[in-house]
Amino acid sequence: MEQGYRFLVLFLLAMMFSRAMCIRHHKSTNNNNGSSSSPSSSSINGSFCLSWRLGVETNNVLPWPTVPTECLQYVENYMIHGQYEQDLDLIMEQAMSFVSTITLAGDSKDAWILDVDDTCISNLFYYKSKKYGCDPYDPSGFRAWAMKGWCTAIPSVLGMFNKLIDKGFKVIMLTGRDQETLGQVTRDNLHNQGFIGYQRLVMRTAANKGQSAVKYKSEVRKQLEDEGYRIWGNVGDQWSDLQGNSPGNRTFKLPNPMYFVP
Amino acid sequence: MEQGYRFLVLFLLAMMFSRAMCIRHHKSTNNNNGSSSSPSSSSINGSFCLSWRLGVETNNVLPWPTVPTECLQYVENYMIHGQYEQDLDLIMEQAMSFVSTITLAGDSKDAWILDVDDTCISNLFYYKSKKYGCDPYDPSGFRAWAMKGWCTAIPSVLGMFNKLIDKGFKVIMLTGRDQETLGQVTRDNLHNQGFIGYQRLVMRTAANKGQSAVKYKSEVRKQLEDEGYRIWGNVGDQWSDLQGNSPGNRTFKLPNPMYFVP
Repeated sequence: MEQGYRFLVLFLLAMMFSRAMCIRHHKSTNNNNGSSSSPSSSSINGSFCLSWRLGVETNNVLPWPTVPTECLQYVENYMIHGQYEQDLDLIMEQAMSFVSTITLAGDSKDAWILDVDDTCISNLFYYKSKKYGCDPYDPSGFRAWAMKGWCTAIPSVLGMFNKLIDKGFKVIMLTGRDQETLGQVTRDNLHNQGFIGYQRLVMRTAANKGQSAVKYKSEVRKQLEDEGYRIWGNVGDQWSDLQGNSPGNRTFKLPNPMYFVP
Repeated sequence: MEQGYRFLVLFLLAMMFSRAMCIRHHKSTNNNNGSSSSPSSSSINGSFCLSWRLGVETNNVLPWPTVPTECLQYVENYMIHGQYEQDLDLIMEQAMSFVSTITLAGDSKDAWILDVDDTCISNLFYYKSKKYGCDPYDPSGFRAWAMKGWCTAIPSVLGMFNKLIDKGFKVIMLTGRDQETLGQVTRDNLHNQGFIGYQRLVMRTAANKGQSAVKYKSEVRKQLEDEGYRIWGNVGDQWSDLQGNSPGNRTFKLPNPMYFVP
């Protein structure tokens, strides 16, 4: 009887100890609002970084040169643990729902504009080496990366792209990449990732050098409208893809908490 | 010796059992991305509702008549457990940082525009009774609430308001509220909540009846510019406060996951 009692006490002690460790661990990992699988980042950081990300995505925070260091873990978590993909999926569903309301005129002038970097194809692998944007922008590093042609398709955007092509939209790819140095590799990269059948890939030429993205992209869109195109939709990961003249009937801002293009 | 061995086995079994329960509990409450203090809402819901909220705040989701029912708990959590205030604080810091870069001309024409509902004063108490926006919009219910004059100041916006007044900005309150029925109570409510010293409260008159918020507010801003005002900043909880003509040099979108004004 006494031995049974000893067993019971020992069993309960073991449970209590294990439970205490569990609660301690749970408290340190929970309440991180979007960085919940990172035990190292505190609740305060997760909450601040969520506010910061909202500020960035709504264009309230601008310009911002780098991701705040305390948000490195948060942004990594966001980008690679599913929330980023889920955000993209929801936005692309909204875009497709808008597409389904459009009746094409049949004159081959119904257009849709897509940005390239981190809209059609992803630079996440490169930005991993730049601490997800905590390191400052490195133009030559980025050029070297882009030259490899290793960007991967963003699946939900590729899905929308294919539906746009199927429906008969003229899809215009509009990117700030330099035509002379990155023209061929960009074309190849888009092709090997499944972006096939677009109408035109518009890149920065010598004439656009030094222009802000808003000015350059506005001019191109104005030119397209002058050619008779009706811009139904415009998708980009930067507000500078979507602001300025002739933005399109509906614009869709994709998430990007890693860098800011003015 | 054998008894010691038995103790050890039992101790390890108890730890393993307790640990397994801990992991199970941890998985069910973790990864809620923004609704982490509500163990009852599932990980999938929290993650979806965070995507939905981002979609709403970036104007990718529109129009939306009501909050998705599965996000009731998430939105309640967001609004009353600190993240909403933290988001507001961060945006107001951005606004104040912009204000600090402005040199006033001294001709009393440097203006700043503020929306009223859920920008200066809060309807959170009312929306609590409408399931934080899960219930459909109820114009007469809202009018009855507004008539009470019980809206409370949003602290971070009141803080910015006072700094704008101190610096010499002409602050224009621009609201879709009806002047005839809500003029006096709105004036009183703003006053009793500390919004004192603004230049003008512009409300909807018979002439604006039925106009969309974008059209009505654009016309007022255009009129202000015609009077010589320079609109430096424009703050609102709806995109329709910030879109259209003469939006202002910088616009600040405050969070509002409870309702959408077209």
